[in-house]
Amino acid sequence: MRIVVDAMGGDYAPQNIIAGVVDAVKEFDVTVTLVGIEPQVRKHLSGYDYPKDRIEIVHAPEVVDMHDSPTDVIRKKRECSITVGINLLKQPGYDAFISAGNTGACVAASTFFLRMIEGVDRPGIGLVIPQVNGFALLIDVGANTEPKPEHLYRYGQMGRVYVQSVMGRNDPSVGLVNIGEEEGKGSGFEKQAYQLLQEKLPRFVGNIEPNELFTSKADCIVSTGFVGNVIIKVSEGLMESATTVLKREIKKSPLAMVGALLMMGALRKVKKQADYSEYGGAPLLGVNGIVMISHGRSTPKAIKNAIRAAMREVEHKILEKMRSAIVGA
Amino acid sequence: MRIVVDAMGGDYAPQNIIAGVVDAVKEFDVTVTLVGIEPQVRKHLSGYDYPKDRIEIVHAPEVVDMHDSPTDVIRKKRECSITVGINLLKQPGYDAFISAGNTGACVAASTFFLRMIEGVDRPGIGLVIPQVNGFALLIDVGANTEPKPEHLYRYGQMGRVYVQSVMGRNDPSVGLVNIGEEEGKGSGFEKQAYQLLQEKLPRFVGNIEPNELFTSKADCIVSTGFVGNVIIKVSEGLMESATTVLKREIKKSPLAMVGALLMMGALRKVKKQADYSEYGGAPLLGVNGIVMISHGRSTPKAIKNAIRAAMREVEHKILEKMRSAIVGA
Repeated sequence: MRIVVDAMGGDYAPQNIIAGVVDAVKEFDVTVTLVGIEPQVRKHLSGYDYPKDRIEIVHAPEVVDMHDSPTDVIRKKRECSITVGINLLKQPGYDAFISAGNTGACVAASTFFLRMIEGVDRPGIGLVIPQVNGFALLIDVGANTEPKPEHLYRYGQMGRVYVQSVMGRNDPSVGLVNIGEEEGKGSGFEKQAYQLLQEKLPRFVGNIEPNELFTSKADCIVSTGFVGNVIIKVSEGLMESATTVLKREIKKSPLAMVGALLMMGALRKVKKQADYSEYGGAPLLGVNGIVMISHGRSTPKAIKNAIRAAMREVEHKILEKMRSAIVGA
Repeated sequence: MRIVVDAMGGDYAPQNIIAGVVDAVKEFDVTVTLVGIEPQVRKHLSGYDYPKDRIEIVHAPEVVDMHDSPTDVIRKKRECSITVGINLLKQPGYDAFISAGNTGACVAASTFFLRMIEGVDRPGIGLVIPQVNGFALLIDVGANTEPKPEHLYRYGQMGRVYVQSVMGRNDPSVGLVNIGEEEGKGSGFEKQAYQLLQEKLPRFVGNIEPNELFTSKADCIVSTGFVGNVIIKVSEGLMESATTVLKREIKKSPLAMVGALLMMGALRKVKKQADYSEYGGAPLLGVNGIVMISHGRSTPKAIKNAIRAAMREVEHKILEKMRSAIVGA
């Protein structure tokens, strides 16, 4: 199996990306194609000991930054690591693409160059969110800010395939993010989406209120990209500010400082549990290819985890399964 | 000053409500009118020692529960504590109304019986959200799930008056919740709202991403009621699940248990900081009367704080100021 990785994308690229890739090829049965500015990639790689035949480099002279608009990347940056990497997927032998770079550019380039799965109009980004006792997949977290109800129905179908294949849960349930539990709650969009999901989607379990996201029993939870993005950003901001306040309080008392040392492990666990970036990539669902979008702040471990998640998608032939789920419904 | 309090609203009514009211009349220069089922209210009050002339009871034989639809409350429960209490505000000598009951019913009854401030089409619920270094006012957190851009403009105007008068900040700034920082981000609604706020609202500081809600320098932050409601519910759910995970981790290690004891004060501070219900009421802005909506799980302290916040609104003649801000703009 061969996974294409954008060496230039992310806040700590290429160093974190390359460190994660090296760990991955040592640990997993995978070959990685690093796409980026070759001399830079080569230089960073030279510091590592790894099986040389398991990492190859494809040169891409241009780099996308976080301020490049998605359409500009498609039109003007045809030689950047994102477009070069995604286009590799059209050749045989390249199985998946991973980038921690500009999310909008990844979504646009994937949609433009790979096209959509038949029956799917708009891609959605899925994100594995940690729960008190497990995980759930939230779709969409930002690809499609103003979806139609039908888009959420497709997310539900694809999410069920993903959760069943990659996360190993049988006949997964699907919920809808809404601000009330009962049918008929929310805005016009949520009411329509509820009706459609209720009518057409197997195992639809109704509305999930945002305070239940981290405990809910739904395996897959669908929302507009706007609301999904708000959810992950609020969570991020709240954990960060809680950490700031906690550190400030601890500094006020020597006893609390000792206490913090003694319970450092437990505190780290909570932080880690709430940190989405730990879980590697977020699958871009709906395009004709396996694309995984990683957090801009990805650690080497997150990159390694994204590679493993992409490998699982390939092993489980997720694209074929999604195609038949959509055609068969 | 006389504040009307719904004795029957909230998960722990009437006991928490009455305990908070008793504390308030002892601590502040205020008279409270408790509205509810008189024998029940009287029974709970009899356990307290307080200045008798500072709490009066108005009988309301009906009770609204969380499942009553707002329109049913207006049409069919004219004798419930919410409608009776709100209608008292139309009589001279009653200055504000507070309820920890059914939010939708409070919004609907306030809008129906008190009517709107001239120029305002839809009410919005403001909520004081804790930040790392202070507070900000978020409007709307659930009254108006599908607003027009003009509604957000009115929220900005009213929010500025509230923050200046009640929270004591000079010439408050206003931000818009959006999933990107730059102008032109978000859905069609956010783009339109940005333009309007930019053009007409003094001190508009642009988009606020949800991860910056707890650190942002904007004094007042406007959003749709749907998104505002998602924000507060995600925060609530995340803090609860983080607490669950932390407790579970602590139990695994005796050292961590000792650590937790030593830093209990710091941990409590973090939880309290993130707990909106601590801050008393959420002002319902836009109606012709001072109405404060408290969290269903309000503690006696939260009720006392809501009474103090309502008193400040009365003292600062917030309705007059809002009327002239809107007419003058």
